Amino acid sequence: MIIIMKTGYDRQELDDVIARIEEEGLRTHLSIGENTAIVGVVGVPIPPELQSSLETCGGVENVLRVTKRYKLASREYHPDPTVFKVRDVTVGGDAVVIIGGPCSVETEEQTLETAKAVKAAGGNILRGGAFKPRTSPYEFRGLGLDGLKILDSVRAETGLPIITEVLTPSDVETVAEYADILQIGARNCQNYLLLEEAGKSGVPVMLKRGMSVQIEEWLSAAEYVMAQGNPNVIMCERGIRTFEIATRNTFDISAIPVVKRLSHLPVFADPSHGTGKWYLVPSMSLAAVASGADGLMIEVHPNPDHAKSDGAQSLTFENFAALIPQLQSVAKAIGRSVGVETEVSIAD
Amino acid sequence: MIIIMKTGYDRQELDDVIARIEEEGLRTHLSIGENTAIVGVVGVPIPPELQSSLETCGGVENVLRVTKRYKLASREYHPDPTVFKVRDVTVGGDAVVIIGGPCSVETEEQTLETAKAVKAAGGNILRGGAFKPRTSPYEFRGLGLDGLKILDSVRAETGLPIITEVLTPSDVETVAEYADILQIGARNCQNYLLLEEAGKSGVPVMLKRGMSVQIEEWLSAAEYVMAQGNPNVIMCERGIRTFEIATRNTFDISAIPVVKRLSHLPVFADPSHGTGKWYLVPSMSLAAVASGADGLMIEVHPNPDHAKSDGAQSLTFENFAALIPQLQSVAKAIGRSVGVETEVSIAD
Amino acid sequence: MIIIMKTGYDRQELDDVIARIEEEGLRTHLSIGENTAIVGVVGVPIPPELQSSLETCGGVENVLRVTKRYKLASREYHPDPTVFKVRDVTVGGDAVVIIGGPCSVETEEQTLETAKAVKAAGGNILRGGAFKPRTSPYEFRGLGLDGLKILDSVRAETGLPIITEVLTPSDVETVAEYADILQIGARNCQNYLLLEEAGKSGVPVMLKRGMSVQIEEWLSAAEYVMAQGNPNVIMCERGIRTFEIATRNTFDISAIPVVKRLSHLPVFADPSHGTGKWYLVPSMSLAAVASGADGLMIEVHPNPDHAKSDGAQSLTFENFAALIPQLQSVAKAIGRSVGVETEVSIAD
Amino acid sequence: MIIIMKTGYDRQELDDVIARIEEEGLRTHLSIGENTAIVGVVGVPIPPELQSSLETCGGVENVLRVTKRYKLASREYHPDPTVFKVRDVTVGGDAVVIIGGPCSVETEEQTLETAKAVKAAGGNILRGGAFKPRTSPYEFRGLGLDGLKILDSVRAETGLPIITEVLTPSDVETVAEYADILQIGARNCQNYLLLEEAGKSGVPVMLKRGMSVQIEEWLSAAEYVMAQGNPNVIMCERGIRTFEIATRNTFDISAIPVVKRLSHLPVFADPSHGTGKWYLVPSMSLAAVASGADGLMIEVHPNPDHAKSDGAQSLTFENFAALIPQLQSVAKAIGRSVGVETEVSIAD
Repeated sequence: MIIIMKTGYDRQELDDVIARIEEEGLRTHLSIGENTAIVGVVGVPIPPELQSSLETCGGVENVLRVTKRYKLASREYHPDPTVFKVRDVTVGGDAVVIIGGPCSVETEEQTLETAKAVKAAGGNILRGGAFKPRTSPYEFRGLGLDGLKILDSVRAETGLPIITEVLTPSDVETVAEYADILQIGARNCQNYLLLEEAGKSGVPVMLKRGMSVQIEEWLSAAEYVMAQGNPNVIMCERGIRTFEIATRNTFDISAIPVVKRLSHLPVFADPSHGTGKWYLVPSMSLAAVASGADGLMIEVHPNPDHAKSDGAQSLTFENFAALIPQLQSVAKAIGRSVGVETEVSIAD
Repeated sequence: MIIIMKTGYDRQELDDVIARIEEEGLRTHLSIGENTAIVGVVGVPIPPELQSSLETCGGVENVLRVTKRYKLASREYHPDPTVFKVRDVTVGGDAVVIIGGPCSVETEEQTLETAKAVKAAGGNILRGGAFKPRTSPYEFRGLGLDGLKILDSVRAETGLPIITEVLTPSDVETVAEYADILQIGARNCQNYLLLEEAGKSGVPVMLKRGMSVQIEEWLSAAEYVMAQGNPNVIMCERGIRTFEIATRNTFDISAIPVVKRLSHLPVFADPSHGTGKWYLVPSMSLAAVASGADGLMIEVHPNPDHAKSDGAQSLTFENFAALIPQLQSVAKAIGRSVGVETEVSIAD
Repeated sequence: MIIIMKTGYDRQELDDVIARIEEEGLRTHLSIGENTAIVGVVGVPIPPELQSSLETCGGVENVLRVTKRYKLASREYHPDPTVFKVRDVTVGGDAVVIIGGPCSVETEEQTLETAKAVKAAGGNILRGGAFKPRTSPYEFRGLGLDGLKILDSVRAETGLPIITEVLTPSDVETVAEYADILQIGARNCQNYLLLEEAGKSGVPVMLKRGMSVQIEEWLSAAEYVMAQGNPNVIMCERGIRTFEIATRNTFDISAIPVVKRLSHLPVFADPSHGTGKWYLVPSMSLAAVASGADGLMIEVHPNPDHAKSDGAQSLTFENFAALIPQLQSVAKAIGRSVGVETEVSIAD
Repeated sequence: MIIIMKTGYDRQELDDVIARIEEEGLRTHLSIGENTAIVGVVGVPIPPELQSSLETCGGVENVLRVTKRYKLASREYHPDPTVFKVRDVTVGGDAVVIIGGPCSVETEEQTLETAKAVKAAGGNILRGGAFKPRTSPYEFRGLGLDGLKILDSVRAETGLPIITEVLTPSDVETVAEYADILQIGARNCQNYLLLEEAGKSGVPVMLKRGMSVQIEEWLSAAEYVMAQGNPNVIMCERGIRTFEIATRNTFDISAIPVVKRLSHLPVFADPSHGTGKWYLVPSMSLAAVASGADGLMIEVHPNPDHAKSDGAQSLTFENFAALIPQLQSVAKAIGRSVGVETEVSIAD
């Protein structure tokens, strides 16, 4: 931690700052400049609240943290990329993982039909929401447990692992019985009790970035999961909130390489929520893969114009199937593969 | 709902849009312009997913909702302002309510001392966090149940009603036993299951605005509480996330009159979180009251430089006590009063 | 300047950083921690480009500036508030200055009528745009020189000083012949050649904050004017761009006390552009004054529903006249006065 | 234009709205719903100020524009993509154009050396700033005319066309004598007089997106250039301002396909400013090409750690040269080529 004193600070103020630091059993390292002084804090651990405390001291201009707020999620702590298996799908490896499926599980037929289309096109994992967070209480909120059962039966039939969202700590146990990956949605990115419960479940967790969550905060949220002994976290960029209204969110593709530099965790991207427009999903999927994404999550629906949620950002089966070979070409261009056709592509 | 067709749409596309609408048992009203056509949807109810569905149809430029996503929270539904009592404190009336207290309950002594200072200065309600959401898992997360018990005993001694945060649905029952107002924090503004559980408790709820939550979404979140039969919701502006880094958040004071125009619910403001800087709290408190806020929530701590959380945005007892008379002057200037000195002020 | 080395940096990297700094004739002050090292730069002047240079060096985590990017505009350089006269109106003094008038000068009659209404209500200065920046080339762009002549004749008749916008350096000389204050609009906040030309004119300058300009950048923009020998700069908050769509901009009232703390310059507020809604102007005007604004700029039009620009955010004469006494009450509550009725109010 | 009346509007208010519209020689189309009424405006032209006027009318909830604010820049007006030549470089064709070079022209040697490296690596066009907009007046502002002369001589020696920034209308004539493309920077995106002057010059214009400019506003800015008879405009995404601080800006790659859908103009991307970090430039370049960008503008410097501006976001010659083949692979994957190696790549 570094404390920068105001121009014109007085000696007593500086002494008070030093005393406040030493009170925590830490030492200081002083650098007196022309107009200001800089105090470095030496020693560990630095109590997290010390920054805010020092900001209240007279004569202090600014207090800067030097260390990160997360540890287990950091590259320094774990230099090699995290790679793990979800059933037979490798996450974080060379092959870019494709998750496809409807926003919401509506019926068994719709889910099965979509799963088959996803699989046929080369997708690896099925998505489908059984518990849906909705902006208004008057919107469709999912089939709940019945939705989970549909996912289970579709998995049995197609062999695709499933990812589905969990909304609240008390549901984690139930959802974890069915899901191969627990999805934590953007609105719950900083729902810390949910993160911890998901961590305890031992099931891999996909943590979507909150709409206004900075990357350091997002990795700190992942730390909540990991601190419970669960190392299998997928970070998923899904768009942030900005002033632009042409898209539902601003899909922050640069977050992908930034997180990969700061962390060893695999990074996925959700171009469906990232843009909110089905016609932007193909180009943004290609861009995400080109930038280094380890996976994509794409909404697919048999009839987007009759979807119970998010139809406007869902691909039809045809559009999804047409996208996969394009993704494979781009992935190949950067030395990776996409989806289940991996070996074939490489053999090409 | 209004559908605007693209320039150059073709007749079949328009017919498909009309057919999609009629499929829901609704009628259409057509307006053919020079280059475009506009389709109005007539009838109720309009299924919430119809907007997204229509956006997928060929030839559609844009689909606009006309009706709001909330009803119980709207001025149209309930033209008179909502006024209710929290013990002997009137919320939503002419008197601006002052909530003061520490970010976190740390010890009984700290809490009692602060409560007494808040009361002596003219504050109405004591705040204090027992369950704290923290960005990093390595920060102080509150005393939990022990914190609630401290608040209870301090209430018994000072007579101040208490507001404290609840983080997760399974805690609502316990927190509601102690709290006079349940606080839902910014990170949980769209935690819908928590909102519903708080709604069911019957205890008044203060709903803080999420960091990137638009006003319509915020009122829709309030709707979740109200739809459970709990009409006593306080909206609390606490700053939104923007590009500006001189303040912790951008305190959106204009949200106060906007919400009061759209809704009958009382609107409070939290200048401590709104700015993140104790030295901005007085001016922003005055501004919030001048703009029509029905209450303020201000962090107060006996020793901000030793607070376990948010010291940098907490007022000392002296600064808090000095602020109240200024607030009273400004309130009086707009025909209102502040805090418990109401009758005296009016008698003035 | 402070350089924070990455965890795991090596000694050669640190030596390279030191060498790069010493190459500029500066010295370093080293603090070696457990996992990182911190290098302080000692000496002056530090070349502005050094920060970016050091960010490219191997092993560097972060480079932080300690000194501000502006000097003449800073409180440290000029501790007392800047106060100056615009004809007989004192700017930056105890009295809050009221600027009123139409967005655009449309006709002499409209301008004169408005000026009289502004003056009668207690306003100090007349605003009116002759050169208008418009988002689309197909919108009304002002009367140009004819507009300036109208303002001149209205000033002669009413005695009100005038403020009007200048869009481009080559117009500064002409506009400065007519204007008592040159207005630099939000879109030109970082149009540095315009700022310098306005600085050279010697005429007081009102510098509106750009829509996405951070406060430090805004003060650096003011520095461009001041560095030309023109100390009479008014900072004007007019709303920033955020994700919220209920208002045209988010009116950042906290910028007022922040700028007043960092700088000696007077700070005004423009609630008309700040909100974009006439019905929010009164409450936001009161809030701005309560927060410490030294002046307000408010759009007033005889017939907002026939204004050639910005009708939606313009007050009618009646609404403007009704607002002034409310402003005076709030100003009095914080020990200030408003507009020309100052002495009377105080005598009250 | 569509006017939505408030719930509970009265008949007189509706009649007033209709009268206001008819006053402009337009007709209305009325749709009376259960709780509201919707008024469509029929006829052309609709005066741009009518929207704001109608927003002031009693009983009006909302006024929506249906038509875009730009015409010449729109796809509807010009369905085929705009393709033009800059010397022998085709802009807007199948080959992705690579612009490389230093942020600022510092010396002839630095510029020539960089141009040769750019050319050798396969770049098409040289960038270099002679007139630099800088946040603080104390930073390096470019060599001015001397910089233009250096660019001219380097072009003569290498054959690379040049792009350089113009800051103010009175410089357009001079800069246009030297530049093959006039660059309008982000801060000047809405400097309308500069846009018009650049339009009049007849030289192709690259229009960077302003930091907080919405896509519709950006296209309206391009309209200013085009309305002067200059059809050769390149749109360049360079990052927008958001709450994220890990990057200098948030590089909005989705703007590329959005603009290409709305407009026929070629769209470039500047990953150097878009991210502010040299180590993010390669991945973001790949992403931009994958998303459909027609060109890239990349900062390249012989010694980024000694650059007079923007060193932190500049590639070394080696990193630039290493990037081009990767870009070619990705471009090939989507059926395009990159830079001057076009024919060879295709012959592959």
